[in-house]
Amino acid sequence: MSELTVKAEKLDAADELAGKRAEFVLDEVVYLDGNSLGALPAAVPDRVADVVRRQWGSLRIRSWDESGWWTAPERIGDHIAPLVGAAPGQIVVGDSTSVNVFKALVGAVRLVRLAADAGVRDEIVIDATTFPTDGYIAESAARLTGCTLRPVTPAEVPGVLSGRTAAVLLNHVDYRTGRLHDLPALTAAVHDAGAISVWDLCHSAGALPVGLDAHGVDLAVGCTYKYLNGGPGSPAYLYVRRDLQDRFDSPLPGWNSHAEPFGMRPDYEPAPGALRGRVGTPDILSMLALEAALEVWDDVTVEAVRAKSLALTDFFLECVQEYVPGGRVESLTPVAHEERGSQVALRCADAGDVMKRLIERGVVGDFRHPDVLRFGFTPLYVGFGDVERAARVLGEALG
Amino acid sequence: MSELTVKAEKLDAADELAGKRAEFVLDEVVYLDGNSLGALPAAVPDRVADVVRRQWGSLRIRSWDESGWWTAPERIGDHIAPLVGAAPGQIVVGDSTSVNVFKALVGAVRLVRLAADAGVRDEIVIDATTFPTDGYIAESAARLTGCTLRPVTPAEVPGVLSGRTAAVLLNHVDYRTGRLHDLPALTAAVHDAGAISVWDLCHSAGALPVGLDAHGVDLAVGCTYKYLNGGPGSPAYLYVRRDLQDRFDSPLPGWNSHAEPFGMRPDYEPAPGALRGRVGTPDILSMLALEAALEVWDDVTVEAVRAKSLALTDFFLECVQEYVPGGRVESLTPVAHEERGSQVALRCADAGDVMKRLIERGVVGDFRHPDVLRFGFTPLYVGFGDVERAARVLGEALG
Repeated sequence: MSELTVKAEKLDAADELAGKRAEFVLDEVVYLDGNSLGALPAAVPDRVADVVRRQWGSLRIRSWDESGWWTAPERIGDHIAPLVGAAPGQIVVGDSTSVNVFKALVGAVRLVRLAADAGVRDEIVIDATTFPTDGYIAESAARLTGCTLRPVTPAEVPGVLSGRTAAVLLNHVDYRTGRLHDLPALTAAVHDAGAISVWDLCHSAGALPVGLDAHGVDLAVGCTYKYLNGGPGSPAYLYVRRDLQDRFDSPLPGWNSHAEPFGMRPDYEPAPGALRGRVGTPDILSMLALEAALEVWDDVTVEAVRAKSLALTDFFLECVQEYVPGGRVESLTPVAHEERGSQVALRCADAGDVMKRLIERGVVGDFRHPDVLRFGFTPLYVGFGDVERAARVLGEALG
Repeated sequence: MSELTVKAEKLDAADELAGKRAEFVLDEVVYLDGNSLGALPAAVPDRVADVVRRQWGSLRIRSWDESGWWTAPERIGDHIAPLVGAAPGQIVVGDSTSVNVFKALVGAVRLVRLAADAGVRDEIVIDATTFPTDGYIAESAARLTGCTLRPVTPAEVPGVLSGRTAAVLLNHVDYRTGRLHDLPALTAAVHDAGAISVWDLCHSAGALPVGLDAHGVDLAVGCTYKYLNGGPGSPAYLYVRRDLQDRFDSPLPGWNSHAEPFGMRPDYEPAPGALRGRVGTPDILSMLALEAALEVWDDVTVEAVRAKSLALTDFFLECVQEYVPGGRVESLTPVAHEERGSQVALRCADAGDVMKRLIERGVVGDFRHPDVLRFGFTPLYVGFGDVERAARVLGEALG
């Protein structure tokens, strides 16, 4: 038994979250792709069966009231809220992340222009290394609001902010490198420039503390199928800080965001609160699967998850150092804890082929074009023994 | 046994679609609310269970390829296509109807402005009696594209078209009255004015022939949870006529519409074909439930469905005439077949209370503010005996 195997056993024995793994459907595979699609929470299948057979099949239309379908977007938003440091009443679930980025950015430009001293605010600053959809949607939002796009690295953001900055769209954690950006400092810099901050939490929510309220974030979006385990393409969410809600002016004012949706009135009057982030009829099957998935969080703190996440990625880097031939991979993931999300990205010339070999050997991560091996660590169901095995198999695959 | 009961039995005995009812989960209730939420097709529960347990739970991330998740939006679009008279490759499924109305209207304004002789096209004509969300979203599309909104009744549309008309958004069937509008003539009038037609098919698709290709419709949207029985909030769809696809310029260019979505390229390049109507990650649970639901159409023609639909609504009006005390209700639904969708709307001063009494007695329709009783007839699972019973119970409730 190697030294690292012994260490893994000790770490697993001391892991206070170890019991959570039993709340997921898992097998002998080491699943390090939860940052792409979270594993299936064990509570989901029966819940979905009930939604389909009883709520839809038997109660049918009555379920909009009796099964709480109508209020699901805000109810489930409130379930997500503590995971991202938000008080209730500020998050609604629905639509894809891309659609929510669009709502948030157009909404942000409109918000900033409401100020009496707004001046000309016609620049949207985005993270040049962002997940591409954010950039594509930002380009569209810019075009429709008469703005131009300014792509820079997050480190360059403070230097480019000016009286022309309308909004700044940033990723909390970079999807390729796993780098965690400094949300409090960057949000403060955006505010100092009189602009609106929009954060994409796809790769941080459920993996580490976000502190939306504490840091005064204006708007935020995120998906729910990564660390929140909501299922493939499960609905995303939109956070609008409470004191901005009355002025939030959505470019997608569907009937679900109306103050009186069943009044069927020809004139639009937005609902108060987070509700005005809703658009059309909510996607109930996916949404209620997500609701069941979120129950695994009921007895867990994000702080405990973060502590384990850092221990997992530390241990993975230690095992890689030990098992992988020198020079074969290069870590893109920051060493400093305060700069690291819950994934490790290793650059490797033949990453595509290597990932295929890993998957054949029961270690599932993913490949990101052109040369990145990406391993996500979901503290609720990944253990230290998994980490040791993954690094060992990686060493063998690269040997 | 009354004359109408005998007639119902004869009509049911001669109904070639009568056997389809067994493909749905139904009970003793007369369900006339399929134009709000279609009943559960019997194939759906097992399919959804397989998607959740095996595809997500066991294959996990591999299902994006191996279970056909990634291509679901266009594959399911092609399954809907024959129901609305479209050749394959022109429909993608995803997002809500509201979001698709937004894509279609902004896309329409951009399309019309591409013409060399476009001139100033700055008016969007909409149906003043439309389902409200279409009007709210149209107002947003107008605001973002520098247009003004011109709400008129569908009958007034030809008279207001001009060289300033950019796009015309119409409902094929009115959600309140059940009136079927003349899609071929109105589309031709819109084209004569050099404008783009956008049709909302929510209340017609699956109930009657639409003929999108045959009538040269430019863009269309529709939901899938009414006559297509896709389930609560199941994803909507967008039709872009083939010869417009290369110029269709979506305001929601998410990464799923990119020519090379996994290239993760910073610059947006739209995919060819209908794919460019996609936005973000597709909502797999709801989408694959819809795919299972659509299988009931595999051995059915829309023409047969239409013939039965008209027979059902004719018979309902006949029974109402017989059973309901004179003057107690007023039909808002056109008598002429060519002007009638698949629902009957009855105006009744105390409609809200009356619908409650009907539901208590096992006849489920719905109430539309302020004074409309709405009854939808889904030919795949509603029989003539149901119709007779519904009218009889209505007569008793009003007696």
